[in-house]
Amino acid sequence: MKIICTQENFKKAIYNTERVIGKQATLPILENILLETEKGMLKISATNLEIGVFLKIGAKIEKEGKITIPAKLVSSFVNNLPPGDNIQIEASDQVLKIRSGGYKANIKGLSAQEFPIIPELGDEFMFSFSGEELREALPKLLTCVSLDGTRPELGGVNFVFSEDKVSMASTDSFRLLEIKVGIKKESDERFAAFISKTNSIIIPANTLAEVFRVISLETKDIKVAIEENQIFFQIDNVRIVSRLVNGKYPEYKQIIPKNFSTKTIVGKEELLRAVKIASFFTSNKSGEVDLKLISKEGKIEIKAESEEKGENKTEIKAGIEGGDQEIIFNPRYIIDGINSISTPRLALLANSAASPAVIRMVQEKEEEIKIVDRLTYVVMPIKN
Amino acid sequence: MKIICTQENFKKAIYNTERVIGKQATLPILENILLETEKGMLKISATNLEIGVFLKIGAKIEKEGKITIPAKLVSSFVNNLPPGDNIQIEASDQVLKIRSGGYKANIKGLSAQEFPIIPELGDEFMFSFSGEELREALPKLLTCVSLDGTRPELGGVNFVFSEDKVSMASTDSFRLLEIKVGIKKESDERFAAFISKTNSIIIPANTLAEVFRVISLETKDIKVAIEENQIFFQIDNVRIVSRLVNGKYPEYKQIIPKNFSTKTIVGKEELLRAVKIASFFTSNKSGEVDLKLISKEGKIEIKAESEEKGENKTEIKAGIEGGDQEIIFNPRYIIDGINSISTPRLALLANSAASPAVIRMVQEKEEEIKIVDRLTYVVMPIKN
Repeated sequence: MKIICTQENFKKAIYNTERVIGKQATLPILENILLETEKGMLKISATNLEIGVFLKIGAKIEKEGKITIPAKLVSSFVNNLPPGDNIQIEASDQVLKIRSGGYKANIKGLSAQEFPIIPELGDEFMFSFSGEELREALPKLLTCVSLDGTRPELGGVNFVFSEDKVSMASTDSFRLLEIKVGIKKESDERFAAFISKTNSIIIPANTLAEVFRVISLETKDIKVAIEENQIFFQIDNVRIVSRLVNGKYPEYKQIIPKNFSTKTIVGKEELLRAVKIASFFTSNKSGEVDLKLISKEGKIEIKAESEEKGENKTEIKAGIEGGDQEIIFNPRYIIDGINSISTPRLALLANSAASPAVIRMVQEKEEEIKIVDRLTYVVMPIKN
Repeated sequence: MKIICTQENFKKAIYNTERVIGKQATLPILENILLETEKGMLKISATNLEIGVFLKIGAKIEKEGKITIPAKLVSSFVNNLPPGDNIQIEASDQVLKIRSGGYKANIKGLSAQEFPIIPELGDEFMFSFSGEELREALPKLLTCVSLDGTRPELGGVNFVFSEDKVSMASTDSFRLLEIKVGIKKESDERFAAFISKTNSIIIPANTLAEVFRVISLETKDIKVAIEENQIFFQIDNVRIVSRLVNGKYPEYKQIIPKNFSTKTIVGKEELLRAVKIASFFTSNKSGEVDLKLISKEGKIEIKAESEEKGENKTEIKAGIEGGDQEIIFNPRYIIDGINSISTPRLALLANSAASPAVIRMVQEKEEEIKIVDRLTYVVMPIKN
């Protein structure tokens, strides 16, 4: 192999591939990235056996070939080069000669034959997401994923497809977040065939974390295909391939209440501050924060106390419709819920001290206030 | 105690005192800060028994008194308040009532009687440093301090005073850094009495790290006094008190060579890049990087290699006076040395592959290049 490419392209390619490589790769070859020439381009791949990622960059190919080299070493080398000079790469006998201006290195590699095969997309893409919508939704969904590993299906995000939308949901069984976004079909036929078989899949949290990292402000759309328990994402020039999670996601729709006896509209930042401050006064991490919704006075009282630390009380103004309520929450879950809101005010919807409460966004247009259900955060109170 | 103060003053005071409180305080009272009224001001103190810090802020005192409260809890409370409203504080029966706008808390405290006594300065200050000079010098000196604890004197920075200067030095016995800065006398008499007794002290690294954190861009000078093995720093409104390190600092002056057979002038960033890249190719953290100074060709060759990784070679241009040299260094120590330089070019001064090399700053004015000895970084080569 003998090629020349720009430093900028090469650096960006290394950056976008090396991160899937875990710190403790089980096989030495998994610490390597694969460089190979393909159809006049340089293809760079990395995998941790769960997730594969590759991309192609423009290069002047003087001689075809392939090699694998340690990701960390090549990344350290190129990231410390002064900007400017092109990168010249030459591989022979499992050694990669790399040169940029006065900077030269011979990096010991491993045979490309040993590199695991990353599945290729057999057919065309099925549908696409808006890059902006997914960039906003993914970090919120990943916050609610279960980390304990006892129920593998809760370690992923559930995607339920309909004709032009997808409901994405994650839960750790203490709280649940559902976000709906639109999709655009890339192939009517392939999409129809897919949802006729199954309309519900579970994507591993790690895969979505990687997808999120690759999405940039410039990403317009993210094309997706699903084939034989593998999902393929195309984000700009980066392809991510991952297995799906086996198993059945819980039927969560039934736990989201349809009607609420108390509807509270309150400033996001104000509620966040008050609950955060209260959380410091609880006796331990899974402490208790008391929210008292006082309809007539149009205020919320947020309280916490503990034997060791003392007590705290904050009053904030709110618009409350319906009866008074006093509900006890784990502050951590309420804080995550408030943080998932991207409108200045939010709706806190409740029925009783013992039934799930819901947090939703609020759209305000002139005098009109509208609770929207694009995002639904469900949290169980602590029963007293 | 009953007082009112601005939120801004109180927040800043908590910020500047709470950091000396370690994570694992040996006594519960050490997790607390002491609030007390003193001469119409609010005084806030914290200590970890090694370092004490206190400051005074303006406050409206309605009732005198004192109390200690957990630093972390009060800090979490005030740092999450919305800006604006004043802070009202009232203490009675070991409980601190604190209030700002709609935010209220009762924080459980401990009796102020239990709080350790932080030594008070008996007399006036002796001399002062420039805030800017100390802010530049301290992080560099702290980098070279010994961390292993076997020789307590090397765990501090040595300050050797003369009439109008101080030489500050730190070493971990692999490399040594000396920086000279000017001092201004605050009291001729007190200063003369001090240096007639001893002109060399050792200040603990932790104390200087705390001093560095408190120095701001606005800090003009830092006043200092030394009394009975205690050192007092006054940085704006913050007072830091610390014990000095007992023991005798090594006579390091004798290891700094006076003359050099090879003098190299080279770009700081270029040398840094080349040594950094080379360090990735060494076989382990304490690897070996080979610097070849080639006088006639006016270049430095920087090389490293290892069985597992491969090899690296970089050539950079340099002005070299004197004979050729090939010296092997631990890249970590060379990198720290280069980083201590704040001029665009540096001088690398050497005598042989087996004797200490020196890194100094270079002052350039029109055509004239001058090696300055305000900062001296000494590094021992690795003998081959």
